[in-house]
This record gives sequence, structure tokens and C-alpha cells, in this order.
Amino acid sequence: MSESSTTKSFHVKSQITGSYQVFFLENLSKRLKLISKNEKIIFLIDSKLFKLFKFEFKQLDEKTRIVEIVCSERNKTLDYSKEVIRKLIDLNIRKDDKLIAVGGGITQDITAFISSIIFRGVKWIFYPSTLLAQCDSCIGSKSSINFDQFKNLLGTFNPPEEVYIFPGFLNTLTESEIRSGIGEMLHYFLTDGVELARKLTDDLENLIEDRSRLAFFIDNSLRIKKRIIEIDEFDTSIRHIFNYGHTFGHALEAITNYKIPHGQAVTLGIDLANYISLHLERISSDEFIMMHNILKKNIPTFSFNEKNIADYLEALSKDTKNQGNKIG
Amino acid sequence: MSESSTTKSFHVKSQITGSYQVFFLENLSKRLKLISKNEKIIFLIDSKLFKLFKFEFKQLDEKTRIVEIVCSERNKTLDYSKEVIRKLIDLNIRKDDKLIAVGGGITQDITAFISSIIFRGVKWIFYPSTLLAQCDSCIGSKSSINFDQFKNLLGTFNPPEEVYIFPGFLNTLTESEIRSGIGEMLHYFLTDGVELARKLTDDLENLIEDRSRLAFFIDNSLRIKKRIIEIDEFDTSIRHIFNYGHTFGHALEAITNYKIPHGQAVTLGIDLANYISLHLERISSDEFIMMHNILKKNIPTFSFNEKNIADYLEALSKDTKNQGNKIG
Repeated sequence: MSESSTTKSFHVKSQITGSYQVFFLENLSKRLKLISKNEKIIFLIDSKLFKLFKFEFKQLDEKTRIVEIVCSERNKTLDYSKEVIRKLIDLNIRKDDKLIAVGGGITQDITAFISSIIFRGVKWIFYPSTLLAQCDSCIGSKSSINFDQFKNLLGTFNPPEEVYIFPGFLNTLTESEIRSGIGEMLHYFLTDGVELARKLTDDLENLIEDRSRLAFFIDNSLRIKKRIIEIDEFDTSIRHIFNYGHTFGHALEAITNYKIPHGQAVTLGIDLANYISLHLERISSDEFIMMHNILKKNIPTFSFNEKNIADYLEALSKDTKNQGNKIG
Repeated sequence: MSESSTTKSFHVKSQITGSYQVFFLENLSKRLKLISKNEKIIFLIDSKLFKLFKFEFKQLDEKTRIVEIVCSERNKTLDYSKEVIRKLIDLNIRKDDKLIAVGGGITQDITAFISSIIFRGVKWIFYPSTLLAQCDSCIGSKSSINFDQFKNLLGTFNPPEEVYIFPGFLNTLTESEIRSGIGEMLHYFLTDGVELARKLTDDLENLIEDRSRLAFFIDNSLRIKKRIIEIDEFDTSIRHIFNYGHTFGHALEAITNYKIPHGQAVTLGIDLANYISLHLERISSDEFIMMHNILKKNIPTFSFNEKNIADYLEALSKDTKNQGNKIG
């Protein structure tokens, strides 16, 4: 499916589907025009993005089937999935149709989950639109659905058939959304040395201005993740290293009612994890300070007090219990 | 996991889990006593069966976690699955727990489906209790969930880790339920010659009386199915031969509001399929008559009239359309 408007790419090995390809895309309009005559596709598009890229989506044939996804964490549920399935049935979905998700993590989760269970599985393709989705979630096979008060309790392992990364989407994001993705990239980079992390944070302000330059870091972040998920796709062993900063990060998100963007909570979570490692003498104070100097450029404004420390510890204990994980 | 109370068995190769074992079980109490101290299991049991085998289930430790499943076709839904998931959460389900389904096809579908999506997959074990489940659905990886008016629109491929067939369960079934299973076995046997089909129908009345003798036919039915699903687990090619009689059978079930038991509808469906093959000169009239003489011993009392012929054709067309299949 590669063609002139896509550039460099790599593939990810999967035990589920064999392998899938990640492409970088220079021109979205061209790509949409190219696939517009395909009758066996149904788009699931973040409704906000659909408006923002109205011109590009006009390249699609007028008969192209489109479902708009209203992206809010509260919609990452079985009930909202049911609504979307009803729309797909109204659009006469068939077993050999492919779903094409265009959006961030929520669009991804809903599309991947539905594609796992409708007709016992249909194929799906992903155009991630947020930095978090481009640098992290677009590979790795996981889909996650919330259940009652439990975040990500349900889900499946179901990789897309192809991933198309269009950096142009990043221009529509807020600085906070960019910083969230940067936090997630820092987390990958720091599992693999300090060079990339330093390069990213040294240039942070410029990157937030000129987002096309983020493609280099996205590519590297995905390649680090790729190496691990190819060994442990189902997250039973070595992939646990990517929990780095996440146990603390999730608890921070929970006590702030998800007001801290995920990747920034992770940045602070890494610093906290390092702090504990320092006290357990797993890392030296030099190492702690070196990483702290990198991380502090992306740490959210947040301070602990007596009240939120108690909430935090409770959230930490719940995260650990629900997921059946141990604190890493 | 095999031990003294289980007898002959075979394994089924799966692309999803590697392989799983099918055991025949002589003594249910012994088996339940044996596993009663395992703390990492949760039973999902057909509520009627749970009452009928009260004595046997008393062998379980009193702390054993049990969810009763109310088995009706109307409960094979996402909404009922949600209720069951809530009960599993109340029982403090963890990622490394195994679900043990004890019941017929509905208990199987609900357990297999939930086990596919909770924590992105937990393992499950199956003790099929109906003849249909013992001779057919217990292997083959499929789970099916109804959605609105669409039967089996949702589902996954998710084989159990182990299957335990206890023929003693068959003594609680009605003659109609036994005949339903016999219809399904005839369908397997006739894809593989006529010998077993003739043997089964020649002895039909005795088998309905002495059900322990059905184990021989269950074993043979599963071995025929095993050979095909090991080649085409995901039902994309050769496994389609098992649609034999089912397209017609499903339509018969639909127009009779599922009053005809599934396997008996399939028996009539096979006869109809053969009748059409006769007219298309795919089989000779000798072959048609030979099979008709076998099938007629298990054909339900049902006759077509002008009204139900129209309903029937409509149901046939819907079955074909929704499943994205062609009439085989």
C-alpha cells in the first residue's frame, strides 16, 4: 500500500497478524484521494479532527462511509461502542470491510476494540492524530475500554494492519498536548540511554514551535518501543519496563481527575520513580540529578500537600490492585 | 492436568494458543474435589445445572468463587456480559485467574467472550453439559454474542485451555435436546462418509435411552471437526464445509422463533441442501435417498406452507446478507 506520498517506514512483527507496517505521510490529501475509490472501507474519525481537516476529507468519494467518534474518556465504554456498532450496521458493514481510525488514543481504542469483536474480527488501519498516539500507542496491539469506575479494565490485543503517521496533524494540538507526548517519548528514551532525551529537552521550545521537527523523535520513540513489543507483545515480561513512571503517573492522573495530561504525569512519575530508586540505592545521586535536569523541563506545575498525598497513596494502591501488577 | 478420573483424550492444535486438550471425564465429583483447593479459579455455571448437580458441586471448597449464569438466548448479549463482569469484579477477579465454564453453548459463549476482553484476555476451561456443546461447539475457538436483532453478530476466536467432557451431564437432557445434538453429529458424519451416520441413526432409540453410549459418537464427531479446524481455525476456507445444512437450518430456526432445536433444524437443513444438490445434479438420486433415509429418523415435524415459505426465503436472504456469506 506504500506509494509516492509516504516516506520512510519500518515494520513491526506481531504474533497475532504476522507483521504490520508504519509509514510516515507527507501529504494527507493525496493519500485520501488515492484510497477514495475503495468501497470496502469505513472511516471512524474524531469528530473535531473531521471539522479541522474538512478540506482534506473532501478528497474522499462522496459515497465513502464515515462514522464520527465523539472523543471523550467517558465514551471509552461498552455502551458507546454499542452506539458505534449500530452506526456501522446502518452503514451495512460486511466481514471483509476494513475500519480506518483517524484520531487519537480514544478513537484508536474504540476502533481497535470494535474491530476485535464484530464478525469475530475485521481488519483496521490507523492514522494517529495526537503526539501521544503517534509516538506511542499506534504500535503495540493494545486496546483499552473503561468499565464502570475501572479505567482500561477491558480490552484486547489487536494490532492495526497499517499505521500512517501524518505530522501535519500535530499543528492542531495545544502546547499541553505536545508536552504530554514529549513526556511519553522521554519515558521511552530514558529506557534506552540519555542522548535522545537530552536532545529532545534541549530543543523543547523550538520543537513546540516547529512541530514538523518532531517526526525524528516520533520515529525513534517507536523504534525503541518496537524492539521490546516484538519480544513481548502480550506484556507478560520485558515489556513491563515501559511501566517506568506509569504506576506513579496513573495515580497522579487519578487524583487530579485527569487534569494533568497523561505524558506530563508520566514525566513526574519517572522523576518520582527515580527518587525512590535513589533511596533504594539503585541509582546514584549523579544519575538522579542528570535525569531530573532533563525531566524538569517537562514536569507539570503540581505540588504535593498532606491531603493529596493521602489520595495519591490510595490511588497508587488501587492502580496496583486492579491491574494485578506490582509496583515496578 | 490429566489424572485418574479422566480417560482417553486428544488435543486440538490452535494458532491462537498453541494447542488444547480434550478429556473424557468419568467422575465429576472426583474431578471437582481435585481442583477444589485451587484459589485462582472462578466458576461460571449454568444456574439450572448448578441445582441439578448440587451434590457434585459440594465437593468444591466453600471459598470457591462461583457465578451462576442464567442461560437464555436473550442473555447472550453485551448487557448480560456486563452484569457477569460486575459479578467477577465483586469476586475480586485478577489477571491470572482462570474462568471455568460449566454449561451448554450459552454459558460457553458468555464465558469465552468475557475471557477474551477482560484484562485483555484471561484463560478459560470448559465443561460442556449439552450434547450440542459436547459433540460440536466445545472445540473450534468461536464465541458468539447477539447484538440487537442480529444473532451472533459479535464474538471472538478464543479456544479454552482444556475441555472436560462428562457424559453424565447428558442424563439431564430432554429427548429433544439429545436429538438436537444428534442432528449436529449427523452433519459432521455426513461430511466424512455415511458409515457413522448410519450407525448412529440405526441405533437412535437405544442411544436416547442409554446416553453413556453417546460418548463414542461424541468422540468421533469432535475428531472430524478437529481435522478441519486445525487447518482453518478462523473459518476463511475449508471450514465452510461445516456450513452444510446450516444456512437452511438457521432460516428454519428463525421462522419458527427458535422452537425447532438447532441440531434438528440442521438435520432438515441438510436434507434441503441435498435436495437442491440433487436438482443441480451434484448428487445422484440414489445418494439423495440413502442420506434421506438416514436423516429422516431425526427430522423434526415441520411442514412448509405458502406463508412460511415466504418467511423462510426472507430469513435465508437475511442470514446470507448479515454473515457476509454465500449460500454454500
